[in-house]
Amino acid sequence: MSSRPAFGAIQVVTPGRSYDIVIGRGALGDAASWQGLPRASQALIVTNDTVGPIYASALQAALAPHYADVSLLSLPDGEAHKDWQTLNLIFDHLLSRACDRKTVLFALGGGVIGDMTGFAAACYMRGVPFVQVPTTLLAQVDSSVGGKTAINHPRGKNMVGAFYQPERVICDLATLDSLPAREVAAGLAEIVKYGPIADAEFLDWIEHNIDALLARDAAALLHAVGRSCEIKAWVVGQDEREAGLRAILNFGHTFGHAIEAGLGYGHWLHGEAVACGMLMASDLSARLGLVPGAFVDRMRRLLQRCALPTQAPPIGIDHFVDLMRVDKKAEGGEIRFVVIESVGRAGVRPAPDALVRQVIADHSAPARA
Amino acid sequence: MSSRPAFGAIQVVTPGRSYDIVIGRGALGDAASWQGLPRASQALIVTNDTVGPIYASALQAALAPHYADVSLLSLPDGEAHKDWQTLNLIFDHLLSRACDRKTVLFALGGGVIGDMTGFAAACYMRGVPFVQVPTTLLAQVDSSVGGKTAINHPRGKNMVGAFYQPERVICDLATLDSLPAREVAAGLAEIVKYGPIADAEFLDWIEHNIDALLARDAAALLHAVGRSCEIKAWVVGQDEREAGLRAILNFGHTFGHAIEAGLGYGHWLHGEAVACGMLMASDLSARLGLVPGAFVDRMRRLLQRCALPTQAPPIGIDHFVDLMRVDKKAEGGEIRFVVIESVGRAGVRPAPDALVRQVIADHSAPARA
Repeated sequence: MSSRPAFGAIQVVTPGRSYDIVIGRGALGDAASWQGLPRASQALIVTNDTVGPIYASALQAALAPHYADVSLLSLPDGEAHKDWQTLNLIFDHLLSRACDRKTVLFALGGGVIGDMTGFAAACYMRGVPFVQVPTTLLAQVDSSVGGKTAINHPRGKNMVGAFYQPERVICDLATLDSLPAREVAAGLAEIVKYGPIADAEFLDWIEHNIDALLARDAAALLHAVGRSCEIKAWVVGQDEREAGLRAILNFGHTFGHAIEAGLGYGHWLHGEAVACGMLMASDLSARLGLVPGAFVDRMRRLLQRCALPTQAPPIGIDHFVDLMRVDKKAEGGEIRFVVIESVGRAGVRPAPDALVRQVIADHSAPARA
Repeated sequence: MSSRPAFGAIQVVTPGRSYDIVIGRGALGDAASWQGLPRASQALIVTNDTVGPIYASALQAALAPHYADVSLLSLPDGEAHKDWQTLNLIFDHLLSRACDRKTVLFALGGGVIGDMTGFAAACYMRGVPFVQVPTTLLAQVDSSVGGKTAINHPRGKNMVGAFYQPERVICDLATLDSLPAREVAAGLAEIVKYGPIADAEFLDWIEHNIDALLARDAAALLHAVGRSCEIKAWVVGQDEREAGLRAILNFGHTFGHAIEAGLGYGHWLHGEAVACGMLMASDLSARLGLVPGAFVDRMRRLLQRCALPTQAPPIGIDHFVDLMRVDKKAEGGEIRFVVIESVGRAGVRPAPDALVRQVIADHSAPARA
């Protein structure tokens, strides 16, 4: 592993808990990453059948000095398994080993593993400590930070869950080496997101460094992951439970969730749906007169350079709108959208139905005959 | 309904939320009970097939001025249904009506309804407000206060849940009129509990007033429910998440949970198992030299006057001990017991295995041939 220094620890401060995000190439094998976590006799690594064979033994070795019993549970890979049945495998494992309420859970994998392990930690014996060890770009810059945990319900994504903060987040950039190109692009979608909503200069930087990011240049990834986590930590620190500001992190997600739900979870990657959703939300912002049309073109070009989808699948406008109505930001049946008010600043508001339908129509692929 | 005044509101103060317990005959029909709750367009009453037909229409009428849409969901009655499948009926209902994250849930029933509705509220869209409307004596004096919510797992009771405080607890003592005598006795077990662990004078009072309580005398119930809630509110205010003091509320529960799990949930009432468990924990306290043997006899007499069981079913000593090992108070495989250090003061500690086995043997019914 490289001896490149870590980006350093970014601190997330919420009302109930403060914790560090450690970012660096080789963080997984660095003994310092695992110092000072809650003590217990048992630890459980939850991973999936894709990531486990590559990284689980390194994590087990790193944890062995700290816990007498480090067990491993590998779940089937994919968003389609982010359900109660799979979650229950974690409870079964913990109870079959008589794990007590000091047991520490480690989530080794992408967003699905992090969300499920975090929710299991929130619920097992009403709460045990957990640590996020995200191995995908999307999880490192978004889902592992901020304490949102959940499983899906057939009627909606992330409908059953908890706000539950981890003890620490350990992002080893070396784990991105084994990531398929499609998942790197999906992670870049969430990185791109932080520009329009919070940092115009960061959006400029991403545009100038997009080739280096796609080539997984170590220095470029370190900056991109670090700055993304800084912005997310700042937002979550202001508003842990999404009473207001935090909702801006859902830029592109209202449209995106409808795409995921309309297709059935697991067809598009979450980041792909968010990419298309961001373009639609950018267009909605332009139609509301908030940003110039040139901004929409700028977003389209950047997403296309990442080979991310910029056209929604043919879900049908009525069905698309219905799917958005169960979004968690909806209130009293009124859909609320994250819009860009100017590059680097976002807001949340309802929008005229006709305008929303026009956006869906203009950005959807024609239905097949 | 009687015009007897309410005991008054008892305030529970936890780090995240403060809320009132309202106790009184007729509280359900008193408009003041429902003032000042969170506003929303939708409310959901969760009840069961036994309680719903008696009280749901009164609650619907009380809520109608406050919420445009008050819907009702009736679950099958009993501890055997305190599982994920039944919990999921609540999520299905909420999503099918497009309930948003301001929707207020009302738990109308006993401990099972309160625990499941509270856990559903904790998880739906990562948390919606809820109100406890307990209709059993046990729920009024114990489970509805303090924010413990959970469902059972085949391997253990209340193993999956959350600490999640209600917005308010409304105890209408008139709902106890329809309660079967066996459930009144089970509720008395939890009332008796508060004496040995926290208030020696209250134990004296209960002994002197046990006939009035069994006869459901209004004044006696008002004092017993009020003092029980005061003690519980005081303990929960010190230690919401059971880091220390709160564990004393589990007096009798380590033995009791093993009885419930060993028989399969739903055979003994929770309060019955706790009654027998308290007697066993009292005996353990005596064998540890903490209290005189006369205290064990005193507890036995009081529980027998309530027609509560004082002999455990024939589970087998090894199995009994195994079942206690998955208790949430266990740490590193070591079982920790709530013991009485002197009447009115409790502590939590491990105990020699031989002593525990002797207690189980002496208090269990002989196995049937």
